[in-house]
Amino acid sequence: MWEPRNPDFESVVRASFARQQHMATLGAELRHVSPGHVHISAPFSTAFTQQNGYWHAGAVASIADSASGYAAFSLAEAGTDVLAVEFKINLLAPARGESFVAEASVVRAGRTLIVCRAEVFGIVGSTRSHVATMLSTLIVR
Amino acid sequence: MWEPRNPDFESVVRASFARQQHMATLGAELRHVSPGHVHISAPFSTAFTQQNGYWHAGAVASIADSASGYAAFSLAEAGTDVLAVEFKINLLAPARGESFVAEASVVRAGRTLIVCRAEVFGIVGSTRSHVATMLSTLIVR
Amino acid sequence: MWEPRNPDFESVVRASFARQQHMATLGAELRHVSPGHVHISAPFSTAFTQQNGYWHAGAVASIADSASGYAAFSLAEAGTDVLAVEFKINLLAPARGESFVAEASVVRAGRTLIVCRAEVFGIVGSTRSHVATMLSTLIVR
Amino acid sequence: MWEPRNPDFESVVRASFARQQHMATLGAELRHVSPGHVHISAPFSTAFTQQNGYWHAGAVASIADSASGYAAFSLAEAGTDVLAVEFKINLLAPARGESFVAEASVVRAGRTLIVCRAEVFGIVGSTRSHVATMLSTLIVR
Repeated sequence: MWEPRNPDFESVVRASFARQQHMATLGAELRHVSPGHVHISAPFSTAFTQQNGYWHAGAVASIADSASGYAAFSLAEAGTDVLAVEFKINLLAPARGESFVAEASVVRAGRTLIVCRAEVFGIVGSTRSHVATMLSTLIVR
Repeated sequence: MWEPRNPDFESVVRASFARQQHMATLGAELRHVSPGHVHISAPFSTAFTQQNGYWHAGAVASIADSASGYAAFSLAEAGTDVLAVEFKINLLAPARGESFVAEASVVRAGRTLIVCRAEVFGIVGSTRSHVATMLSTLIVR
Repeated sequence: MWEPRNPDFESVVRASFARQQHMATLGAELRHVSPGHVHISAPFSTAFTQQNGYWHAGAVASIADSASGYAAFSLAEAGTDVLAVEFKINLLAPARGESFVAEASVVRAGRTLIVCRAEVFGIVGSTRSHVATMLSTLIVR
Repeated sequence: MWEPRNPDFESVVRASFARQQHMATLGAELRHVSPGHVHISAPFSTAFTQQNGYWHAGAVASIADSASGYAAFSLAEAGTDVLAVEFKINLLAPARGESFVAEASVVRAGRTLIVCRAEVFGIVGSTRSHVATMLSTLIVR
């Protein structure tokens, strides 16, 4: 649906993602990149848990924020960067899963501000459960 | 200002914090625990950076969320747990710093829901800069 | 998709809406009530404008908040009430329109907390433009 | 604390407020204007109530949003306008009161984006109760 302003959107998204050391630390991978849509997955690891053994909300927010940032970045003009201004996340259920995936989409792409939505799912075998939803604002620089 | 409902609030906060493996992974420490107020600090590490070498918004959110959770937990009754329902964070500046501190306070303590605010500062030498502000809702179970 | 817990959900939603004097003041009407989904529309009126002559963000938020509240209430048990805990709204474009419609849906329906999403559109003739998106948390009492 | 960029900040704030017909409809008044700080009050009226007879969350959000907008506008350069990008509000208690006041302050004033916080109090006689807290992002155009 979205028209990319940079024909090389996929390579700039992948190059920027590769520079996010936090994503490497989480073991996160880019699963899908299309104009306005990015999915990032990560395996469960006990290194990022909260007090009850589930993924910490900050880990859930990390992949949702990066997926949103790259969904926005996929629509940005060549030579710009995109930074998160703010986000709000609702934690719908404890973040249980063998792995997690954050699926982000652009809601509105202005010249200066881009609004994204992301859904995070916990995956056990072939079952996905909805663990979080994020609404965020990003700025193009 | 706040009256704790659990006289052992500090020990239950410290015990729960010690179980958050994500805090240990970030190198985070509890710096202050009083009724309704918790501070958590963490050193900068390249392991948690975004594409420009600053701390990732998800790392910033992680310490703000835990500080808020424990500020809320410090006011909860014995035998309960506190979980984040949702939070919203504004990223005020790139998260530059030799270390970071998240300072959380309870805004409203209901029987079921607790609302917290947290400020995150980046610290370089003796200078603190305001990098983020969070407003969150937590539930007592 | 959602199963109502109260077979009389539509009549309790309509009765509560009729008691919201703010909706009457805005000229708002319930357009759609089904389990987990409520639409509320309102005509443009200069009485609720901001400095540039568009609908004020508070008017936009008012119909989105009520639509979300009634989407949640449609799934609540008989004898309970639903109150908004918090909401976040992104204003995607100036609220231009001959009329507006807020379309709310439940994202998660817990026993205590319900999470909703709402989209607000400005309508001119047969054209709808997306003016706002809301993500909210409600409590069942 | 904040240095206004427009020496006529107060008159431009007052002129813009006077054009917000929604504020007149609510009976709202500008109570305080200083650089980065604006207070707006409004009387209770049954015209803006929800189902239980309290002020509707949308009315509460309306005065908090306008107060935040004018706190931001008080720091903007001459010849610009300020628009709300998004806001998040926590409703801390039912909006009871003979009148209400929203007190907004700028948290961060960038060239493009301004972040504000607002507190809304319900007033009965000489007693103020905290009914809502808002965190918002505005853009200078």
